Amino acid sequence: MKRSTRIRSVTAGGPDGWGVYRRARRMAEAGEPVIELTIGEHDERTDPSILAAMNASALGGHTGYAAGEGTPELRRTIAERITARTGVATSAHEVLVTAGGQAALFAALHAVTDPGETVAYIDPYYVTYPGTIRGASAVPRVIPTRAEDGFMPSAEALSEGLTGARALIVNSPNNPTGAVYPRRTLEQIGAAATSADAWILSDEVYDTQVWEGAHISPRALPGLAERTLMIGSLSKSHAMTGSRVGWVCGPAETIADIANLATHTTYGIPGFIQDAALFALRAGPELERRISAPFERRRHIVAKQLAEQTLVRTLPMAGAMYVMLDIRATGLSGLEFAEALLDAERIAVMPGESFGDCAAGHVRVALTVSDDRLDEAMARLTRFAAGLASAAAE
Amino acid sequence: MKRSTRIRSVTAGGPDGWGVYRRARRMAEAGEPVIELTIGEHDERTDPSILAAMNASALGGHTGYAAGEGTPELRRTIAERITARTGVATSAHEVLVTAGGQAALFAALHAVTDPGETVAYIDPYYVTYPGTIRGASAVPRVIPTRAEDGFMPSAEALSEGLTGARALIVNSPNNPTGAVYPRRTLEQIGAAATSADAWILSDEVYDTQVWEGAHISPRALPGLAERTLMIGSLSKSHAMTGSRVGWVCGPAETIADIANLATHTTYGIPGFIQDAALFALRAGPELERRISAPFERRRHIVAKQLAEQTLVRTLPMAGAMYVMLDIRATGLSGLEFAEALLDAERIAVMPGESFGDCAAGHVRVALTVSDDRLDEAMARLTRFAAGLASAAAE
Repeated sequence: MKRSTRIRSVTAGGPDGWGVYRRARRMAEAGEPVIELTIGEHDERTDPSILAAMNASALGGHTGYAAGEGTPELRRTIAERITARTGVATSAHEVLVTAGGQAALFAALHAVTDPGETVAYIDPYYVTYPGTIRGASAVPRVIPTRAEDGFMPSAEALSEGLTGARALIVNSPNNPTGAVYPRRTLEQIGAAATSADAWILSDEVYDTQVWEGAHISPRALPGLAERTLMIGSLSKSHAMTGSRVGWVCGPAETIADIANLATHTTYGIPGFIQDAALFALRAGPELERRISAPFERRRHIVAKQLAEQTLVRTLPMAGAMYVMLDIRATGLSGLEFAEALLDAERIAVMPGESFGDCAAGHVRVALTVSDDRLDEAMARLTRFAAGLASAAAE
Repeated sequence: MKRSTRIRSVTAGGPDGWGVYRRARRMAEAGEPVIELTIGEHDERTDPSILAAMNASALGGHTGYAAGEGTPELRRTIAERITARTGVATSAHEVLVTAGGQAALFAALHAVTDPGETVAYIDPYYVTYPGTIRGASAVPRVIPTRAEDGFMPSAEALSEGLTGARALIVNSPNNPTGAVYPRRTLEQIGAAATSADAWILSDEVYDTQVWEGAHISPRALPGLAERTLMIGSLSKSHAMTGSRVGWVCGPAETIADIANLATHTTYGIPGFIQDAALFALRAGPELERRISAPFERRRHIVAKQLAEQTLVRTLPMAGAMYVMLDIRATGLSGLEFAEALLDAERIAVMPGESFGDCAAGHVRVALTVSDDRLDEAMARLTRFAAGLASAAAE
């Protein structure tokens, strides 16, 4: 039977850059001592106090259909958090609870595009962006950046990329690069979006993981709130990746439309998960700091190892739970380096090419193993890179 | 800012038939003694043993990203259940776990249609169908039925409705009518779908609630498995409405495509909910019978009350947790009757018109209150109808 064109084209086909990850998984499952630095998932589990809140809610009877747009308490609490963090007064009606940030992005794309319209995104990018755009029957268009610019988009590239586009996906703090966009970059984004009359879909799921500078949401910039749909999640900030709970925040009438769509896509998310999320958010910034502290600590471990050599370089590791290493001095591509590193050292990292052409010659390291193992992995990685370079020089 | 045409047209606009429900909710919240017979949700909560399994899974660490297509154990267990119930050998690769039956339908629509293609559905219908079709950027087309035919579609109407359509949504046991399609009707559906080369999207979420006849899936009919996407859920069978867990089952390559889309829509569902679902399914038919028993018992209560008068009539109450009452002899529309019943008797039922033009002059009664209250409500409802009819005759 004929499947639809759109479902067969969600992914572009061909190698997807996840070969290293899958090979490492198989090796680990076969008992080999692989150090996996691939996936953006905390080495700690969801806090037991959050799980206790979930269990209490379920046993208390919150197991039936829950409010599809989110419980009033959770929407209000998220709105308060956004108000506090952006300085923009935000009401519960400007917030919709979703099944994670991914579902928020998918829904937001429906709200701002009709089939066949163009959505721009910035390379390097989180791997699901182009597929999510295609899954929403829209057309992805990449905006290139350069490693030499810290992977920040230029005003010219933004202007060109947004011509005729309905929306731009922005992700700061950035996965995979760890960049945190400064105000100037966000102002350029705002100017280009305003000029093109395009929406800004702002993926801010790493907003609690900022090590240099400060997190600024486009929602906080003058005149941009009306054209911004802000995407948040408890996955990264509260180590709740598996709970699938997030939100989209924007103009109330657009949120009402998306809530209407949500009734027809997921029919809301479980009430006991909403109550767990409410508990987690009410625990306040202290819990968030505790969850993000290991990544801040570990970037210093990476920095210390890199300081002892000059071959492998990195950008300022400003945010998120990753560092992007420039391994071009080895003469290998990111993919070749990652494959060789896995073979020789049993260390798994993501090839930069998995995240777009602009990350070629890089690898992404997730800071998601214990400090000791990360220290050891970085020592071996830099030694391995040095060996490659000297072999090439002979 | 401009929202998309598709998001603004998910619902058709105008009165949606849920006014009675909302008014009854407000009255109940204000402390009035309303008997609510509106929503398809069990009066019993999710069984504590299922919640205990969920809690054990979460505390055991299943709180990270879970397999997006469903855990291998859950997919296999669902496949075994489908094999046992349909007689069609079904493998885990033909099953995708989704965030409930609603998410399964939304995903299935993406798999079989491109934007602008037509999907047919049978009137009366579950209220989300047309919005879900529009939400997937497809075009809904209604296939009418007649109360006099037990709301079964005729071969002619099916053939006409499927001309040029890519898919047909089928729902047996049926919400709202309680009809259970016999083999002959399903064969006519199969013939019409085959002739039009259309998919059958078979919503079977009430498959454990069959009181007369037997549940037959289109998947079980000769030659139809290849063009059928079967939608299931634990919502109704296991009183897990709020857990949002269901599945879609069909040809393996189509399921692989839908799994790919799921990565870009919800990124899977929580692992601890998948483990709760696994526990629930492994509890076997005994638990399912216990969950559905109240509805079988209560339809006898309705039948007994209706037998004492001739004005309000019903179809054979063959399945699902609803009965559809024909109140045309009162001279009122379903909406007028429901509004008047709520005012006069504080009893809330759904106007038939909420479920399509073909259910005009009917009201749907959900069997979701205790036996005593249902008995009382039906006695008052039939007396109220008799009063209306005699007033009209004067």
